[in-house]
Amino acid sequence: MDFASDNSGGASRKILEALVTANAGSTPGYGADDYSLAASRKLAEVFEHDCSVFLVSTGTAANALALSTLTPPWGAVFCHEDAHINDDECGAPEFFTAGAKLVSLKGAQGKISLAALEDAVERFPPGLVKQVQPASLSLSQATECGTLYSLDELQNLTAIARHAGLGVHMDGARFANAIESLNCTPAQMSWKAGVDVLSLGATKDGALACEAVIVFDPARAAELPFRRKRAGHTLSKGRFLGAQMSAWLDDDHWRELARHANSMAARLAMGLTEIPGVRMPWPRQVNEVFTVLPGDIDRALRAAGARYYDWGARGLTAMQAPGADEVFVRLVTSFATTQDDVGQFLKVARSAA
Amino acid sequence: MDFASDNSGGASRKILEALVTANAGSTPGYGADDYSLAASRKLAEVFEHDCSVFLVSTGTAANALALSTLTPPWGAVFCHEDAHINDDECGAPEFFTAGAKLVSLKGAQGKISLAALEDAVERFPPGLVKQVQPASLSLSQATECGTLYSLDELQNLTAIARHAGLGVHMDGARFANAIESLNCTPAQMSWKAGVDVLSLGATKDGALACEAVIVFDPARAAELPFRRKRAGHTLSKGRFLGAQMSAWLDDDHWRELARHANSMAARLAMGLTEIPGVRMPWPRQVNEVFTVLPGDIDRALRAAGARYYDWGARGLTAMQAPGADEVFVRLVTSFATTQDDVGQFLKVARSAA
Amino acid sequence: MDFASDNSGGASRKILEALVTANAGSTPGYGADDYSLAASRKLAEVFEHDCSVFLVSTGTAANALALSTLTPPWGAVFCHEDAHINDDECGAPEFFTAGAKLVSLKGAQGKISLAALEDAVERFPPGLVKQVQPASLSLSQATECGTLYSLDELQNLTAIARHAGLGVHMDGARFANAIESLNCTPAQMSWKAGVDVLSLGATKDGALACEAVIVFDPARAAELPFRRKRAGHTLSKGRFLGAQMSAWLDDDHWRELARHANSMAARLAMGLTEIPGVRMPWPRQVNEVFTVLPGDIDRALRAAGARYYDWGARGLTAMQAPGADEVFVRLVTSFATTQDDVGQFLKVARSAA
Amino acid sequence: MDFASDNSGGASRKILEALVTANAGSTPGYGADDYSLAASRKLAEVFEHDCSVFLVSTGTAANALALSTLTPPWGAVFCHEDAHINDDECGAPEFFTAGAKLVSLKGAQGKISLAALEDAVERFPPGLVKQVQPASLSLSQATECGTLYSLDELQNLTAIARHAGLGVHMDGARFANAIESLNCTPAQMSWKAGVDVLSLGATKDGALACEAVIVFDPARAAELPFRRKRAGHTLSKGRFLGAQMSAWLDDDHWRELARHANSMAARLAMGLTEIPGVRMPWPRQVNEVFTVLPGDIDRALRAAGARYYDWGARGLTAMQAPGADEVFVRLVTSFATTQDDVGQFLKVARSAA
Repeated sequence: MDFASDNSGGASRKILEALVTANAGSTPGYGADDYSLAASRKLAEVFEHDCSVFLVSTGTAANALALSTLTPPWGAVFCHEDAHINDDECGAPEFFTAGAKLVSLKGAQGKISLAALEDAVERFPPGLVKQVQPASLSLSQATECGTLYSLDELQNLTAIARHAGLGVHMDGARFANAIESLNCTPAQMSWKAGVDVLSLGATKDGALACEAVIVFDPARAAELPFRRKRAGHTLSKGRFLGAQMSAWLDDDHWRELARHANSMAARLAMGLTEIPGVRMPWPRQVNEVFTVLPGDIDRALRAAGARYYDWGARGLTAMQAPGADEVFVRLVTSFATTQDDVGQFLKVARSAA
Repeated sequence: MDFASDNSGGASRKILEALVTANAGSTPGYGADDYSLAASRKLAEVFEHDCSVFLVSTGTAANALALSTLTPPWGAVFCHEDAHINDDECGAPEFFTAGAKLVSLKGAQGKISLAALEDAVERFPPGLVKQVQPASLSLSQATECGTLYSLDELQNLTAIARHAGLGVHMDGARFANAIESLNCTPAQMSWKAGVDVLSLGATKDGALACEAVIVFDPARAAELPFRRKRAGHTLSKGRFLGAQMSAWLDDDHWRELARHANSMAARLAMGLTEIPGVRMPWPRQVNEVFTVLPGDIDRALRAAGARYYDWGARGLTAMQAPGADEVFVRLVTSFATTQDDVGQFLKVARSAA
Repeated sequence: MDFASDNSGGASRKILEALVTANAGSTPGYGADDYSLAASRKLAEVFEHDCSVFLVSTGTAANALALSTLTPPWGAVFCHEDAHINDDECGAPEFFTAGAKLVSLKGAQGKISLAALEDAVERFPPGLVKQVQPASLSLSQATECGTLYSLDELQNLTAIARHAGLGVHMDGARFANAIESLNCTPAQMSWKAGVDVLSLGATKDGALACEAVIVFDPARAAELPFRRKRAGHTLSKGRFLGAQMSAWLDDDHWRELARHANSMAARLAMGLTEIPGVRMPWPRQVNEVFTVLPGDIDRALRAAGARYYDWGARGLTAMQAPGADEVFVRLVTSFATTQDDVGQFLKVARSAA
Repeated sequence: MDFASDNSGGASRKILEALVTANAGSTPGYGADDYSLAASRKLAEVFEHDCSVFLVSTGTAANALALSTLTPPWGAVFCHEDAHINDDECGAPEFFTAGAKLVSLKGAQGKISLAALEDAVERFPPGLVKQVQPASLSLSQATECGTLYSLDELQNLTAIARHAGLGVHMDGARFANAIESLNCTPAQMSWKAGVDVLSLGATKDGALACEAVIVFDPARAAELPFRRKRAGHTLSKGRFLGAQMSAWLDDDHWRELARHANSMAARLAMGLTEIPGVRMPWPRQVNEVFTVLPGDIDRALRAAGARYYDWGARGLTAMQAPGADEVFVRLVTSFATTQDDVGQFLKVARSAA
């Protein structure tokens, strides 16, 4: 009953097997191997667009590298105040950009509101030397609240960005879960929606450690080989990243894994909704369930060995905030979550209600 | 016949199996898992010393993180002019230290000479504000020439460093090959020899992608969790690094792999020495053979599909430099090199002589 | 009628004369001259405390250097959202700290509220690796709204900071105006109030270009000679900074200049208050008057050649925001402002009312 | 008898008077004043070329800002091993470029040799990801040895640079002395000689603290307003920089001051040459005399109160190195040096011979 993170599980069997297969023989290093080249090719196909691909081993590296291609040291990155880049990466974007400023924007349920972005663009006019210069917009899809921008919402935000001359980054740590939920193509949720550079995460969706920085306009990628190398993110035995990404994409394996994680979360959410006293501040959309639990249920679950994070009151309005004997928690499912895990969790919760 | 790099091969079977074993079940993320904790414990045992351990996935990251703990932005790192940190990491040390200066020192066969270090220490007196401040000494063991400092040579260099208030870093990308060749303990070649922070490389010696930053005085390691995180080098599924390092250390697997690589290089060197026209500018010591080949032999080997790097004239004196129809090359063996690879290589070379 | 900035005027006659006097003869460079040494000595006397002093030529340099001594690259600086360091220095703190994060705090009239600081301290627990680490608190005295923290308010804020292990910086660009208004000693408003490092501004108060970074615990100043040098802020003919600072301090010249600027602002504020339709969102405290003017008055003043900045709605509550034909403006006086300037301004305003 | 530095003297009377004149009245801040605008205009005239001008208060700032416009964080700056940027600025270029690498080149008498530059260009092929990327060439005119590149030598070096795609920076801390000595126009020694960005120093030549970054292709200057601001080098009372630069240029004042300094050095060199036992390793060209003095003479001069730096053996060949009772020294003259200073110095030296 580990619902702490989609990083709690290991890797999918197929991906692990691909690693073993890729182990044989001798290859060139630093990403010039056939596995890495194949991964790039497959990503171009899946995204229906020419692109430059840079594989790395963490999402933080992918995000920070992506932002550094869009933002000069004196630039502003507009992002949601709860964004992973703002709150969970120990200043990696500031490090990789050599000192850019992340400007926190507000918006309900983890999503930047149009008004907040419009206001920010107005507050940072280009050319006003005393201020940092507007440079990029970073959108998380899915968000830190497990919610999704609709394709229309993405278009509206990126239209403002484009008009203001901002580059657009998408933190796609849960990109696969998002397209499964929105039932759209990878292209629709990325470059067709105005995204310039995507951090595509495989790790949370069944890989060991593999993320791709995807630059849809290869002209913008000229600096990235050097940026990646000097950040220590160019693996010498690059085949092991290439093999993960290739296996992840093959036969829609990535979508299958995400679909499973989403469905486990759906089942969990549905079960919880039926329990008296349990509240959902917003509907589940991907593989994360945010819910306010009565203290009794929380204690029973903890006692039974369930693992998940207390989420404080992040993302909640004042009216939604947990009451005296309530706790707001985040439950995350993954490719490795089983129906049994969910069933057992719900059973304990129901008994304690 | 791939002698291009010790990164050309995959991973050892044992390490791959350990990865598969570690895949099962649910673990905490970010290095708090049992595999990573075990790796730290084993390193402390192997090195016979308390230490703080930080696992990362590349040697460049390990080196740059290590140097950043020893060197302020206005500091000087003394290193050999051909050191990997100076010549092959695209400025990673400068990036991680926020702008320190690498001061190139000379010395035959890739080894910093005592005189060069003494001179550097004199040229950079502490407190002279107009200059960068002397901060650290970085030693590569084995060096970029595949040579080794003797334990006495290490002691002499680190004594100067200590006297000058410098922290000492060792780039141990081929540490295992070095202790096998010197027939000494890990402790003797590290903290007992005056090393403060060691980059211990497993990747070149049979791992997929795993290096350890080992800080022998844990008080000096306080910044490293943050430095590693913001560099994007804290893997979320940390178990996969821990499992590699653990399996690498278990049952002296790391030494066995290095011994094999060294012995393949020894066999290669011995065979080459017997071929007329082939010259060795210095004796082989680890898993790298540097040799001047007559053009005929080089062409025959390339034609037969052998892979290795042309080394220009790096490390050679004017008298040793390759002549009109000669080429200076580097041949690297690894755990994956077979006696057949070596035999076939020598056979082609002999025929062409 | 230039009320745009306290930088609009030149330098005081006494300071200019001191520069001419200091010009004679030959001196050592880089701050080892007698004028600079005297300035340090005088600052120690004026502040009744041992201190390390670093003279520079801009307030941005002073602030950024000060913050860099208190904040590691992965640190958080807590500051008011409208602070000069956050909004008007083009990312200088991020540059000098190598990427620290400025965390914006709220509070009425430019002053950080206790609750906001307490909340921030709670949101950034030390040791939580995924977040930047709490490192420093920066207080502006006077604030960007021309308001002042009382000595008690300073004590309360710095007590929280100290308890949380934060270093305390004060941006004292208008420090002289502040002590004149609070009628306290420099010591009371700095180290006695919990300030570790002070940026003391002379430029806005009658110097040409001179600011001091004052570190009250000299042990904390060890890095500053190097930080200042590599930022290009160590003047070779350092005597010219020393001479400015010395003359500014001599015979309470600095306080006299500030007193004049404050009294001109007081006169301006008093006059404006008596004009129908003019509103003051908060009382004037130093040499800045923030006021909502009816459109007619604003237009008449502009037409008469008055210079001042439109302040948008910064610092105002929704209820205070300027109405349809109103404008919120900032009026700044300085040592160079004359009674005539003020009289003429008020006359035009009255006529237009 | 202060021959320690051209920073030992104060400022020229004309420049000081210009400062007093500029003090009157009210002006816009941050370089938008008439004095600064006039300075830019005059520089364009003097250099016979459109240019973007950025005034700052130190040579270190000018150099570091200039290099940061030409060199990415992963770039290499080729410079002489004794260049001021390499040896005397405490890592400022590394700081402003966010971590670029200064690659030291050799050459007699402080001048980069053609062969050394050709070799460097060959060692750093563009696109080789493991190395820093060739980005810029920095030439000091005059050099740290007080020597000059001829116009032909400049052309030959910048031709290699241009062919290799390098931007060219000139450190012109003693630019005025150089053009006086070469008897050429400012244009001939800058953009006509292939220089892209010039640090033009007025401080050593009679100003208080004033240097200009001159970018000859304004398109390359787009980032500089932000870089200067965030480095704290945009003076709020910018008129004081503008007034210095304007007065320095007016009526060829700058050339007159340099001519005087050069002629004092010429007289000094001539006098020293005639003293038995005194050696000149290379001919004087600007306002610096490098000479090997017998110990007796050195001691007599020190005893008489003369100030100058012991230069070790920097720039000397082994054969030129000072003998047992000799010392190699640098003597610098400036606009403030008098014939009496020189006469008295020579008299003491002659007596001691």
